[in-house]
Amino acid sequence: MRFLAFCRKFNNLLNKPIASVLAKRNMACSRYEYVKSYEQDDSILPNVWIVIRIDGKKFHKFSKIHDFEKPNDENALNLMNAAAIAVMEEFRDIVLAYGQSDEYSFVFRKETQAFKRRSAKLLTYVTSLFSTNYVMQWPQWMKDRKLNYAPCFDGRVVLYPSDENLRDYLSWRQADVHVNNLYNTAFWKLVLDKGLSNQQAEERLRGTFSADKNELLFQEFGINYNNMPAMYRKGTILMRKRLELQSDVETQQKTRQVIVPLHEDLISSKFWKTHTELLGKYTPGPYKTTAELPRLLTNQLEQQFEKQAIIS
Amino acid sequence: MRFLAFCRKFNNLLNKPIASVLAKRNMACSRYEYVKSYEQDDSILPNVWIVIRIDGKKFHKFSKIHDFEKPNDENALNLMNAAAIAVMEEFRDIVLAYGQSDEYSFVFRKETQAFKRRSAKLLTYVTSLFSTNYVMQWPQWMKDRKLNYAPCFDGRVVLYPSDENLRDYLSWRQADVHVNNLYNTAFWKLVLDKGLSNQQAEERLRGTFSADKNELLFQEFGINYNNMPAMYRKGTILMRKRLELQSDVETQQKTRQVIVPLHEDLISSKFWKTHTELLGKYTPGPYKTTAELPRLLTNQLEQQFEKQAIIS
Amino acid sequence: MRFLAFCRKFNNLLNKPIASVLAKRNMACSRYEYVKSYEQDDSILPNVWIVIRIDGKKFHKFSKIHDFEKPNDENALNLMNAAAIAVMEEFRDIVLAYGQSDEYSFVFRKETQAFKRRSAKLLTYVTSLFSTNYVMQWPQWMKDRKLNYAPCFDGRVVLYPSDENLRDYLSWRQADVHVNNLYNTAFWKLVLDKGLSNQQAEERLRGTFSADKNELLFQEFGINYNNMPAMYRKGTILMRKRLELQSDVETQQKTRQVIVPLHEDLISSKFWKTHTELLGKYTPGPYKTTAELPRLLTNQLEQQFEKQAIIS
Amino acid sequence: MRFLAFCRKFNNLLNKPIASVLAKRNMACSRYEYVKSYEQDDSILPNVWIVIRIDGKKFHKFSKIHDFEKPNDENALNLMNAAAIAVMEEFRDIVLAYGQSDEYSFVFRKETQAFKRRSAKLLTYVTSLFSTNYVMQWPQWMKDRKLNYAPCFDGRVVLYPSDENLRDYLSWRQADVHVNNLYNTAFWKLVLDKGLSNQQAEERLRGTFSADKNELLFQEFGINYNNMPAMYRKGTILMRKRLELQSDVETQQKTRQVIVPLHEDLISSKFWKTHTELLGKYTPGPYKTTAELPRLLTNQLEQQFEKQAIIS
Repeated sequence: MRFLAFCRKFNNLLNKPIASVLAKRNMACSRYEYVKSYEQDDSILPNVWIVIRIDGKKFHKFSKIHDFEKPNDENALNLMNAAAIAVMEEFRDIVLAYGQSDEYSFVFRKETQAFKRRSAKLLTYVTSLFSTNYVMQWPQWMKDRKLNYAPCFDGRVVLYPSDENLRDYLSWRQADVHVNNLYNTAFWKLVLDKGLSNQQAEERLRGTFSADKNELLFQEFGINYNNMPAMYRKGTILMRKRLELQSDVETQQKTRQVIVPLHEDLISSKFWKTHTELLGKYTPGPYKTTAELPRLLTNQLEQQFEKQAIIS
Repeated sequence: MRFLAFCRKFNNLLNKPIASVLAKRNMACSRYEYVKSYEQDDSILPNVWIVIRIDGKKFHKFSKIHDFEKPNDENALNLMNAAAIAVMEEFRDIVLAYGQSDEYSFVFRKETQAFKRRSAKLLTYVTSLFSTNYVMQWPQWMKDRKLNYAPCFDGRVVLYPSDENLRDYLSWRQADVHVNNLYNTAFWKLVLDKGLSNQQAEERLRGTFSADKNELLFQEFGINYNNMPAMYRKGTILMRKRLELQSDVETQQKTRQVIVPLHEDLISSKFWKTHTELLGKYTPGPYKTTAELPRLLTNQLEQQFEKQAIIS
Repeated sequence: MRFLAFCRKFNNLLNKPIASVLAKRNMACSRYEYVKSYEQDDSILPNVWIVIRIDGKKFHKFSKIHDFEKPNDENALNLMNAAAIAVMEEFRDIVLAYGQSDEYSFVFRKETQAFKRRSAKLLTYVTSLFSTNYVMQWPQWMKDRKLNYAPCFDGRVVLYPSDENLRDYLSWRQADVHVNNLYNTAFWKLVLDKGLSNQQAEERLRGTFSADKNELLFQEFGINYNNMPAMYRKGTILMRKRLELQSDVETQQKTRQVIVPLHEDLISSKFWKTHTELLGKYTPGPYKTTAELPRLLTNQLEQQFEKQAIIS
Repeated sequence: MRFLAFCRKFNNLLNKPIASVLAKRNMACSRYEYVKSYEQDDSILPNVWIVIRIDGKKFHKFSKIHDFEKPNDENALNLMNAAAIAVMEEFRDIVLAYGQSDEYSFVFRKETQAFKRRSAKLLTYVTSLFSTNYVMQWPQWMKDRKLNYAPCFDGRVVLYPSDENLRDYLSWRQADVHVNNLYNTAFWKLVLDKGLSNQQAEERLRGTFSADKNELLFQEFGINYNNMPAMYRKGTILMRKRLELQSDVETQQKTRQVIVPLHEDLISSKFWKTHTELLGKYTPGPYKTTAELPRLLTNQLEQQFEKQAIIS
């Protein structure tokens, strides 16, 4: 920026005598600056849902080297969730994020003007912020497991014109986690509990349908798949909600905006009727839970209070 | 991938009787999969130089909070360099990287087929890998300075058809570091040594040319600007070079490919005549130095030897 | 196509002896073919309204040289309409076209797969077909006025994600014709009837509002603007409709699909309620009129009967 | 344009009382105008060769219905050439055009700023102007053959970064005409002179190489393929050249810039050495010929003199 200002200033002075020593550098200024014009506009069409999905690069190997529990590593999944929450805290126009396995999708509302809707800006900020948070929050979730090398995520931008398209996109990702997780659950049970080799387990499952795998889990391992943790079966939905505070006497504040993790079925229309803010006028709805607040949430509250403490 | 395979398999079975319990999920499979077709092709035109430049987001504030030395923090710059080296180690088709301040440019050779030249893939892998390495290598370079929050980098792709365009692009960035660093050097001398306020220093320098600032540094501080460290004045050029090994008796290896940091003037044509591999047939040239190897280089060698030790 | 087939065939034969005379040409085949890969994909995002708008190039001069009546030349407008009808006859997926002055907008339904939604293909076919029809049908509408030189139209593609966007686009164009035509009507009355110079007429109208111009037309020329021909005030909407045939005894056909010109107010919601096929399930609705069929329509019927006569 | 000016003016008046009758229209102005922002920037990367190629749509059928001579119709080819010359007369930055069969390629010089390098503008102007000229000049070349229906051309934009790419592109098109024309010449000789059916001729030629077809033409029809008209074998290259005038006493002008048709081998490097202006500094070179001027050229001269006569 300073350089451009300098160029303009210089151009204003062109008619005045200038020390010759300056000549070369100043010529350089005008000579090279043209390359900036090679940057091409990549603004996104207005009025479409912008989805940015990031994927872990070679995470099969990464999860092996870092001893992820199979088929699901609760802490590794929550590390993903925590990194995604950090992204949502930065971008107020992300109304929903959905994560499963080593991928996360961020949904910007149709009207967002963040970074003037420039595709590369949105894409790289989200990817970079997720990446650095994943590394920084590693010790908090993975504890004594050392991070052996820098992980890497790729990202892509996909546009969806209609609400139906957006719902179908998210349904696609949630259908994916269902199929994969059911398979993986059965596969690792066969390997870890029954002692089958990977190849044997694969053969055992080849050609089976969901019902077969459900049956297998129940008959051979006494597992009712539907009772497995919802995060494994449904992935994690992040949304902004208003949390009711019961004891915040000092601030007189009754609610606080937080990003909450949900593990609901978003394929059904019930989800969209409950969270009407997503497709309607965007105002975060209330968050009510009788259960204990998840650690992802208490972490946020702690951080918010810390910041407040520093400021006041 | 598994999901798509499943879909294909399912389609093959469409004419056979299927357990009704499967119906919903299978319909889902075919119903939602169409959203994948909304991803648009972003392949880059063949035969152009691909430059990816990343920039630190709000690094003015970031450098303040993390007590970067002014006007230049050698360690912070080398942390940037170390992260960039990690990117170059991953992408063999990056023939040159150039860094200064909080930005880094990566130059892919014209012919690269990495990720089928898909723009978003290249852009996000480079940005993500740089970002995670910056965080991971922070303790190594910044020592006892704690990383207070996750940094963030944006990235962009710019295409340059001709060799001249590419040279002008790099000259543009190096001219930028010259103008900025000369200004900053004078500015911080006035502030730190002479006790001027920021505003007073700004006023003192307003309207001055390079020659004036050179003179000011010499007259008032006894500083010959040209003797300041080259990394501050010229930025850092990273290139792949063959390093001659003198003592590697065991492996019988005479040379080893490394990524070396240079702080040369790349505006002059001398640079391009010396490093002919850049615009000609790409084969890393030799690296000769009488000075001590920089830490950025010894780090690499150590890592390479470590890996070798693990393998053998 | 034949050339590519030849190349493939040649590649199959590569291991067999070939007459040396062939060598150069065959090498050429494989050597040059790569340039085809430089063509970039320009497929349009699915599920958006595709609007192609063409504009006459320098039609101010063109209309002067060809003595267009001022402010509106009924025949010149109908020549535009006739050319647009030819485009709609070719592209079944154009559900509506809207024309005014020297411009025409063509609306493809969201789901169109014409030319695989390739932007340049759609754009150039529409522009070329409109252009050639404009020239070919000139004598039919402009009679003894000779076409002095080849006219030229530019075209652009604009995408609208929502139905509301599409309605607003068309409203924008129709609001444009209103403002322009009211101004032009008053302007030319002042010039042609009152003998004012162009400059005087301009000054007279400067700063006036619609109401002022309405008043001026009424007071000074006894003209009720709302009674002027609807085509001048509203432009022309082309839609596919089913025309009831009363006398087609031979073919036993009761209705015939035609493209009808309408001059209705499309800003009001009444228009969209009447022509529900536009935003709903696309099936051409009935065309009912008590007035004489417009020549644009009788021309079509004649052509259809002629074709039928040739075929049978 | 007038509408936008009106909007601006209106905005300036917003604080003043306005007749209520205006309200609706003025609201419309601000309400609908936003749709213009949905137009996306399509500027072409600087410093690359821009090639626009147009192709006749369904010209196999078109040529049949209009009785084109087989395998080559000299007049139909010259009609294509004449239309292309009209395009080149309009766009001074087209340095070369190359036509064969029902296609024409237009090469804009790398530096062109025509229409700010907007892709759709360049593409549609070229396609539209070619299309209208094809129809307008039809009677001049096709004489008593009536144009039965409006022809249509599609167009595409392809970018080539290097001079070598551009040469290879043109070589690709000329290699195409060679292969096709040799085949077609042999095919139609077999059909028209020997009375073979289309199918028999196809079978006769299946699997043959160029040498075989050359031999067949010579042995069976006494034809030396290399003596066939160059326009059929090489296609037509259009370039701007300076024509020496011998008798233009009145104007004292010694040369005149014209667009000349050449039928040379552009695959060989000789072509590029002769016409150095193409890849070097662009200044039209001299045109020297001992033969009679082609009609495409005398037509241009006549038109130029006519215009001059009108002006003076």
